[in-house]
Amino acid sequence: MVMLADTRFSTRRRTLAAALAAQRIDSMLVTHLQHVRYLSGFSGSNGALIVNKDLSAQISTDGRYLTQVAEEVPDLEAVNARQCATALLEKVSGVRRVGFEADFVSVSEFERLQAACGEDVTLVPVSGVIEKIRLIKEPLEQTRLKEVAALASKAFEDLLAAGELAVGRTERQVAADLEYRMRMAGSERVSFDTIVASGPNSAKPHHDASDRVIEAGDLVTIDFGAHRLGFNSDMTRTVIMGHTTEFTQEIYDIVLRAQLAGVEAATPGTALVDVDKACRDIITEAGYGEFFVHSTGHGIGLDVHEAPSASVSGQGVLQPGMTLTIEPGIYVPGKGGVRIEDTLIITQGAPEVITTTSKDLVVL
Amino acid sequence: MVMLADTRFSTRRRTLAAALAAQRIDSMLVTHLQHVRYLSGFSGSNGALIVNKDLSAQISTDGRYLTQVAEEVPDLEAVNARQCATALLEKVSGVRRVGFEADFVSVSEFERLQAACGEDVTLVPVSGVIEKIRLIKEPLEQTRLKEVAALASKAFEDLLAAGELAVGRTERQVAADLEYRMRMAGSERVSFDTIVASGPNSAKPHHDASDRVIEAGDLVTIDFGAHRLGFNSDMTRTVIMGHTTEFTQEIYDIVLRAQLAGVEAATPGTALVDVDKACRDIITEAGYGEFFVHSTGHGIGLDVHEAPSASVSGQGVLQPGMTLTIEPGIYVPGKGGVRIEDTLIITQGAPEVITTTSKDLVVL
Repeated sequence: MVMLADTRFSTRRRTLAAALAAQRIDSMLVTHLQHVRYLSGFSGSNGALIVNKDLSAQISTDGRYLTQVAEEVPDLEAVNARQCATALLEKVSGVRRVGFEADFVSVSEFERLQAACGEDVTLVPVSGVIEKIRLIKEPLEQTRLKEVAALASKAFEDLLAAGELAVGRTERQVAADLEYRMRMAGSERVSFDTIVASGPNSAKPHHDASDRVIEAGDLVTIDFGAHRLGFNSDMTRTVIMGHTTEFTQEIYDIVLRAQLAGVEAATPGTALVDVDKACRDIITEAGYGEFFVHSTGHGIGLDVHEAPSASVSGQGVLQPGMTLTIEPGIYVPGKGGVRIEDTLIITQGAPEVITTTSKDLVVL
Repeated sequence: MVMLADTRFSTRRRTLAAALAAQRIDSMLVTHLQHVRYLSGFSGSNGALIVNKDLSAQISTDGRYLTQVAEEVPDLEAVNARQCATALLEKVSGVRRVGFEADFVSVSEFERLQAACGEDVTLVPVSGVIEKIRLIKEPLEQTRLKEVAALASKAFEDLLAAGELAVGRTERQVAADLEYRMRMAGSERVSFDTIVASGPNSAKPHHDASDRVIEAGDLVTIDFGAHRLGFNSDMTRTVIMGHTTEFTQEIYDIVLRAQLAGVEAATPGTALVDVDKACRDIITEAGYGEFFVHSTGHGIGLDVHEAPSASVSGQGVLQPGMTLTIEPGIYVPGKGGVRIEDTLIITQGAPEVITTTSKDLVVL
């Protein structure tokens, strides 16, 4: 069997080199681990990469990962070092403008990088260039995102079907069951700490999962994600335990209408601020504007939160191949809250909703 | 019932202010989330803290966490902002030397902080000061570390007793079961991605947990941790499936001898390099020195990896109240590996081993 070289990574490195030409960058030092992975395939927890304008590249990692890097990155020479970035810089020779990731390199690390450079090397801050390339998801990336979202959606549906979300159980037990279902289905980890927020806790958008016992009448907001092959999922559903009240029914209906309006607005060419506005206007007009205390959504991919951002200060317009969550919420301190969240892939026409669980009100 | 104010956090802030006097710092801007938590009790995912030399302090977080911050930090005023650090800096008035966390503030963030400062404010890089305070664990911190280590140790023992580590199961299934047991026992998350490395995978120190099916004759290295109330655990055991071979028995025995020597060496006044040497010498003398590809251990607390470091270049000496892992390993590519790891609390006399699972060779 002939192994064909995976050209995804070298193609991305070529795109990066071209994007850096405007800043006259000779070599780009990549230290953010998601970016090292994006540009090389290496998935270890310590590593750095340097990409030169002639498209040559070197990767560095330490002894713990030498077997792994040889498997994951067969096309690049690996430099064995604990201080990966400085090890790569020390090998740069000649007059060079070397870009570094200013959003991810600390002030202290920058001092160390400077000390490792020869006197002919100038370090040039680079921001947002790799993120911009990552904005538009390639077909294989879209497939991976759909797979991990489907895995998580099914785990949630199975959790409900199995009766594991029930009055008398604790938030933590429900979170444990959901995480176990995702893990057994192939999730490598949670993409963020699972939120199971019941009763008054549902008024805290980022409550985790406590030992509180779920009671009849509670709103229960579950916000969770799986992670597989580098990609993350993100979905939220709120269910009502036992019986609705006028309040819980009302805020559920408002948030659902807002969420559907946000999904409908998420088409190519729409400004991110207008996607946010589509959600926010409905909640504001219903009199709950002050209780929608966060932005409408964010991109997702190798990071759980990445560009673009749908908020009151969101920048730019949607394009096909972007991802976006739509996750309006209402949180009334002391009373409870509702959030409903889907992840979308922007396509020509209506977006593809990849978190496929029903949003109809569920009373358990 | 009278609620007594929790003075842990204000006491730590006082210690910090005193430690910064030598650098003539008027106010310290704390942005690393573990440090915000250490100095205030706030556990949210977005926040910053400013501590002034007169011991006044302010915290900042965004709308998602306003309910939480009021509960967790009743003694400080909370500033509602998405950009927490700049919001706090904008409130600084008068001529001030303001410290910032140079190890955690990115080059880009530093530019934003500078722009937010009035012209009378000078930003001063501060490194390692809070880490140094954290080095010595307070009694309550030691209790928390023992609790989370005990939780994880018991989950591992229960996993073995239940037969969940068995030939024919995948690494991922074993990891899922172990994580589920920790979660149900009160763990809020894993402290790092669980490693279940079987057969040839055991030669990769930081393998995660794949779909590989565990076979008779395999070495299986399991390195895992729980996280509860801010504190992490870390323990590794290697078991042998079905039957030993001369190779697996030999390297297990060497690593165990090395590990016990490391534990024995971990007493107050011992240099960190000598703790590393105690382990490394045994492995080197047995002819496997080139296959011990990482350092001997690290401190653990709010972070899984924190100071001190027991390595060939380790700095300083052990003191009572420090934590340290002792985790020698041998990794022979293609053949397999063994790692055995405990977490210790350094005390007067012999260290307290808080990961209490037996290290005797287990053949399942």
